[in-house]
Amino acid sequence: MPHPFDPGWFQEPFRTLAAEYPEADVYPSDQFRLEWGPIFHRGRLDGSARVLVIGQDPAQHEAIVRRILVGEAGRRLQGLLAKLGITRSYVLVNTFLYSVYGSVKARTRRDLRLVAYRNRWLDALLVGTNVEAVITLGTAAAEAWDKWQATPAGQASSLPVSKLPHPTQPESSSKGDRAKLAAATKRMLQQWNAGLAVLAPAVRHPDRVTALVPYGSGFQDGERPPIPEFDFPAGLPSWMYEQDGWARRSGADPLAKRRNITITVPKGVIP
Amino acid sequence: MPHPFDPGWFQEPFRTLAAEYPEADVYPSDQFRLEWGPIFHRGRLDGSARVLVIGQDPAQHEAIVRRILVGEAGRRLQGLLAKLGITRSYVLVNTFLYSVYGSVKARTRRDLRLVAYRNRWLDALLVGTNVEAVITLGTAAAEAWDKWQATPAGQASSLPVSKLPHPTQPESSSKGDRAKLAAATKRMLQQWNAGLAVLAPAVRHPDRVTALVPYGSGFQDGERPPIPEFDFPAGLPSWMYEQDGWARRSGADPLAKRRNITITVPKGVIP
Repeated sequence: MPHPFDPGWFQEPFRTLAAEYPEADVYPSDQFRLEWGPIFHRGRLDGSARVLVIGQDPAQHEAIVRRILVGEAGRRLQGLLAKLGITRSYVLVNTFLYSVYGSVKARTRRDLRLVAYRNRWLDALLVGTNVEAVITLGTAAAEAWDKWQATPAGQASSLPVSKLPHPTQPESSSKGDRAKLAAATKRMLQQWNAGLAVLAPAVRHPDRVTALVPYGSGFQDGERPPIPEFDFPAGLPSWMYEQDGWARRSGADPLAKRRNITITVPKGVIP
Repeated sequence: MPHPFDPGWFQEPFRTLAAEYPEADVYPSDQFRLEWGPIFHRGRLDGSARVLVIGQDPAQHEAIVRRILVGEAGRRLQGLLAKLGITRSYVLVNTFLYSVYGSVKARTRRDLRLVAYRNRWLDALLVGTNVEAVITLGTAAAEAWDKWQATPAGQASSLPVSKLPHPTQPESSSKGDRAKLAAATKRMLQQWNAGLAVLAPAVRHPDRVTALVPYGSGFQDGERPPIPEFDFPAGLPSWMYEQDGWARRSGADPLAKRRNITITVPKGVIP
């Protein structure tokens, strides 16, 4: 069975962007896990993307796969895009190249070098391309969009944008309280529905034509589809894109947790 | 600082080879760790390789980096190639796509589908290319070479080959006995010296012209150089190519060890 894969950053300007990226002078190590390296994108770099998504920062699964939004947040986003008929023609970048450790200081977030590098990605993906709509996930991503819009290229752009809550915002905000989680999920999906109403007419060239089915009060079966194999680098095992929760930060104290990632092949994979 | 990287399998025939590979029907799961996926190569796929190396099978570091021979065996090989003046113009493939679990049955090793797929790589890398010499590491790799030589393309080839012991054969054969390890290392390096004497005149276009300095009785400083950054995928942190021993199979029993890989950022990387 063929296993289509993402060939990555072999063409300019992405080849240069993936080789020359900001490091510790721009991303301080007390605010970012520089030790796992930068993680750049997921999706189409060949000009075929119709929707651009800005996420926040990569976590442990992303550090292994070397693509962004491949865990639970990625599956929820995949479901959102599918409601627009977008199953392949998307490209995702993050606000931050490195995983956030603790919180990001305003001065870091606004560092002109950090912003300029991200804007080079956005220029490459948005100026003179086929992108028809933009989604931002969370407040940092919304700010990233605003900073691009303030540039000459951004000012010249009239792309519609939907600024949505981050897909795992309900978990972050409810801290293990099930009732709060249900309420926050419902609230988020209402906002997503409002966003979909704006996005659906803007996406005029979906991968498949589909009637817009809004979310209910929680995620239903099929609304968290697996990440497609063709978004992953070549040769990765299927459980890495079909399943989630297989990478965890392991260790007895914060430094150990920062130093270790344990990957566990899910049950049932080894016969 | 720019971080040159290996763009991977974006060009044919490698793009197809990295998408259509043998799976469990050819590589039985009682003999191979299929659960970590196939790992294809390391080095130049753009036709610039002057030396082709056949190794054996990938281990845990390779499963993370998705390139072969990146651990201790890879560093020793890197030193061997450097003695020939080859610091960049090499390409490495393995006998087996997947990590060996236990031992490989003769029937598996000789499976015509397994051999045919590997020969497609060897054809792509050897027929009408700039390769001037071939190195095999270990007995399985020597057999892989013989099986390619028996094909029409192999019969038509007059490339010189050096069949050398695998770089970590001394460790495998001495099982923790330091005296045996020293003796086995000395013996291996004598065989490597004999191989170098054959290879050096064959490699007519080295990356840098260098007088051949044979090995002594053990590895000296500088004879185990780091794997070059430009062999790795984009964005990997520098400790992954500068250091070794950062990935281990963790778990209390054989199945747990088969299911887990723990990656530990080396000490001193996080400030």
